[in-house]
Amino acid sequence: MRLAELSERSGVSTATIKYYLREGLLPPGHRVTATTAEYDAGHLRRLRLVRALIQVGGVPVATAREVLGHVDDESLGRTVRLGAALWALPHAPEPDEDDPAVVAARAEVDRLLESLGWETARELAPLSPVHRSLVVAVATLRRLGYLWDAELMAPYGELMHQVARRQLDFMETHASPTEQVELAVASAVLFEPVLRALHRLAQEEESARRYGIE
Amino acid sequence: MRLAELSERSGVSTATIKYYLREGLLPPGHRVTATTAEYDAGHLRRLRLVRALIQVGGVPVATAREVLGHVDDESLGRTVRLGAALWALPHAPEPDEDDPAVVAARAEVDRLLESLGWETARELAPLSPVHRSLVVAVATLRRLGYLWDAELMAPYGELMHQVARRQLDFMETHASPTEQVELAVASAVLFEPVLRALHRLAQEEESARRYGIE
Repeated sequence: MRLAELSERSGVSTATIKYYLREGLLPPGHRVTATTAEYDAGHLRRLRLVRALIQVGGVPVATAREVLGHVDDESLGRTVRLGAALWALPHAPEPDEDDPAVVAARAEVDRLLESLGWETARELAPLSPVHRSLVVAVATLRRLGYLWDAELMAPYGELMHQVARRQLDFMETHASPTEQVELAVASAVLFEPVLRALHRLAQEEESARRYGIE
Repeated sequence: MRLAELSERSGVSTATIKYYLREGLLPPGHRVTATTAEYDAGHLRRLRLVRALIQVGGVPVATAREVLGHVDDESLGRTVRLGAALWALPHAPEPDEDDPAVVAARAEVDRLLESLGWETARELAPLSPVHRSLVVAVATLRRLGYLWDAELMAPYGELMHQVARRQLDFMETHASPTEQVELAVASAVLFEPVLRALHRLAQEEESARRYGIE
């Protein structure tokens, strides 16, 4: 398809598509003549992913380019390619390690990962911004006097593990490895709002069931 | 305890406590003399909740006052008091009902609630900003070409229901109804970052288990 059709089918203006092409977020089309190029289904999919990252996820253009670079780098392991977006999303800043709430939170998160048997998450901990975000969130709770510990968190960890397993199972139903990685990256950005809304709706439902609606 | 001790034990400056008192976010202390007042454990707990809402949840002062008004209003049903913070948090704006993606998303969310048997959530749907957020999130996915439907979402809804049940069970272990409501409001704000981090960490763990770390 030509640029005009790509624009029509993706709902993205030709000016924006040209901008993404210049910024290297979208691979160039296949040259037909000096002034026209052909685009294919891969371009359409990639455009969808770029919009998910930038417009929905609020990821800066430079970060999106970095994420897509990892997605396309077939020399990288699949875990790294899948995790590219997860690690590139905004995360909590480095916590203050002198803060007793941070020290206690880190110890509880360590105990949690041990009790869940999440061995690789423990291995990746020193590098992972995701691990850091959990430490910061638990430290915030503890600082306010809500003493969340490993025992309290473990059942939620198990439930989130079921969510993650189901997401990867779904991803694996997709044909090509490129499509799988693209889907994983998009869902890192797009699925969180769905999960949060489902959680809030479940709270509403369960609370109304137990205590009625007046 | 006096104001100085309340400040020390809560980690909130006396200036900020006085501001919260003036704004009606914290009930006045018990007058001892014309210039001094006594504060109790209830004040300490309330201060913790105010900080959770304002500093962690980013809730504006006027909204926090509204939420706390609901929390304290014993004439309201428990579901409304518990849900006060949930409804006051920032939510998606009204979707464009002429957008075919919104129409399709709303139909899928209706089918989802029916298949889950979430009757009260269905009843509250026209009023609920939580329901609206789910429609908007699903519409965004569909607009990008990810055709999420009721069947795909149902298992995640079941898992989130388990999370919500566990949260209410925990809340019910607390002594007084006021403490229970305060805990529910605080957790609406504070627990979401923990759940999100656990979800991301579970994705990291499951992906590393399946595809290894290179």
